[in-house]
Amino acid sequence: MDGDNMKLVTASYSGVPFIGAYLQEKNVVLNVTRAAEENGHPLPETMIEAIKLGARFLQQVEALIAQHEQSLLFTYGIEDPDLEWLAPIPRPTKNIYCVGKNYREHAVELGSEADIPEHVMLFSKAPTAVIGHKARIPRHASITDELDYEGELAIVIGKEGKGITKDEALHYVFGYTIINDVTARDLQKKHKQFLLGKSLDGSCPMGPCIVPKEYLHSEEGIQLTTTVNGEVRQSGNTRDLIFSIPEIIETLSKGTTLEVGDIIATGTPAGVGKGFVPPKLLQVGDTIEITIEGIGTLRNEVGQ
Amino acid sequence: MDGDNMKLVTASYSGVPFIGAYLQEKNVVLNVTRAAEENGHPLPETMIEAIKLGARFLQQVEALIAQHEQSLLFTYGIEDPDLEWLAPIPRPTKNIYCVGKNYREHAVELGSEADIPEHVMLFSKAPTAVIGHKARIPRHASITDELDYEGELAIVIGKEGKGITKDEALHYVFGYTIINDVTARDLQKKHKQFLLGKSLDGSCPMGPCIVPKEYLHSEEGIQLTTTVNGEVRQSGNTRDLIFSIPEIIETLSKGTTLEVGDIIATGTPAGVGKGFVPPKLLQVGDTIEITIEGIGTLRNEVGQ
Repeated sequence: MDGDNMKLVTASYSGVPFIGAYLQEKNVVLNVTRAAEENGHPLPETMIEAIKLGARFLQQVEALIAQHEQSLLFTYGIEDPDLEWLAPIPRPTKNIYCVGKNYREHAVELGSEADIPEHVMLFSKAPTAVIGHKARIPRHASITDELDYEGELAIVIGKEGKGITKDEALHYVFGYTIINDVTARDLQKKHKQFLLGKSLDGSCPMGPCIVPKEYLHSEEGIQLTTTVNGEVRQSGNTRDLIFSIPEIIETLSKGTTLEVGDIIATGTPAGVGKGFVPPKLLQVGDTIEITIEGIGTLRNEVGQ
Repeated sequence: MDGDNMKLVTASYSGVPFIGAYLQEKNVVLNVTRAAEENGHPLPETMIEAIKLGARFLQQVEALIAQHEQSLLFTYGIEDPDLEWLAPIPRPTKNIYCVGKNYREHAVELGSEADIPEHVMLFSKAPTAVIGHKARIPRHASITDELDYEGELAIVIGKEGKGITKDEALHYVFGYTIINDVTARDLQKKHKQFLLGKSLDGSCPMGPCIVPKEYLHSEEGIQLTTTVNGEVRQSGNTRDLIFSIPEIIETLSKGTTLEVGDIIATGTPAGVGKGFVPPKLLQVGDTIEITIEGIGTLRNEVGQ
């Protein structure tokens, strides 16, 4: 097995949800839930419960991938019309934590140098907003004139903790995924606190997969690119984060318990639609692709 | 049965959680879960699942109260040391929605006339912050110098919905409870968005009960009083809300699906600790009591 090849997904086939592994070289999704059952070692139903198993979960998936990589038993081609990608964690058990203005150039593009934060700025998105890879983002035209995209690397917490220091922060990380922090700019501004403008149904595309931290090389920073209809809009690198992943975890967990399956979106780089003159906001039919090296591409089209 | 007497609680007895009804005149809690089992009509395990049963749930509880009011079978005295009050919804399935600055005098006491909002301001508290009646609020002395109280009436949603108009809003309300929106003022200010300063563990006391809307008379507005160590600090009435309960529900549900068990705290009246000169912030040993007529008193002491 390719050491880098551990892309955990939640998907459904003919309406039956399962935990899967995307085998990139073959372009298929392995039904890990089925394969594990077949081997007599069934997995829990949900990704969050599976993550709670810790290293045992990853070892089991690795073994199943090795076993099925050649046979392609229990696998589906990714263009199979019966295959639906869900968010890797389709229903988080609380709001998604999000860091605001965590790249200098992004803070400035929507305001001025004065908007570069001195302290981690945290807001949240309701879990009802979560949708998967390839699902449509509703345009919400009757509610907002300013629907915008924000490509972000997101942390998935793997171990419950509180008072976590920077030095030990990565022990609490299970892995990483991609989030499109879709934002209604007018609502975000009008209602002052960000929650409402960030929580419209379908405004939190997540996926296509979670890559466990052991499988993501991040020493040099992680490159993130967002395109809209093929045009590059955002190109950032996590080495430019104002507050690093360990710092975010330390600040958030000081007095607040982090739980397994919690998701923390780390902020978006410059290049959001509202930052252009004139603005390049989302319209029905637009396709947004967010690519993070080592994870993949999260693609969503804006629907009615 | 007294028509006003429907105070639904979640509690535990000797560590076993149950759905209960507080019988005010007798000062006992009826173990509704046990009584329903005994009658051969078991209820779901959690308050959220029970609320999903709708009118059937209330009818069943009414019948059980009528049946047990005299016998006091399956009831516990409220001073029984084995009885622990939990929050009526001990673990919401998402963050608690909160309306900020929804009473004019409160908006002004922490700022100026300019802080009176023109639009509903919504933020959230993490569900990890929820504790029950009588549980201790941690002082978090190493994290905050400015721990403060905020007594609030909270809405419990009883029916899933989206795009709910003001006129139909109350059809989506199951009932009401009390929340103490405990706030670390320094963190609230420092991190700009409110989430972090509102989400410390134990900073969301909730209870003691939910009163279904049919049992709460609110035509004249609902009176709310907060005392700290017996001294009245807040005295408000929901008729002074800037944004009424139907308006809040309409605004929030425009593009965001509300789900059964969602909780919306409606905002706090003037008289928070930070508003006094000098400030009257919370210290270890302080007891906060929030009384809302028709619901009861939520009491919590600040612990280490």
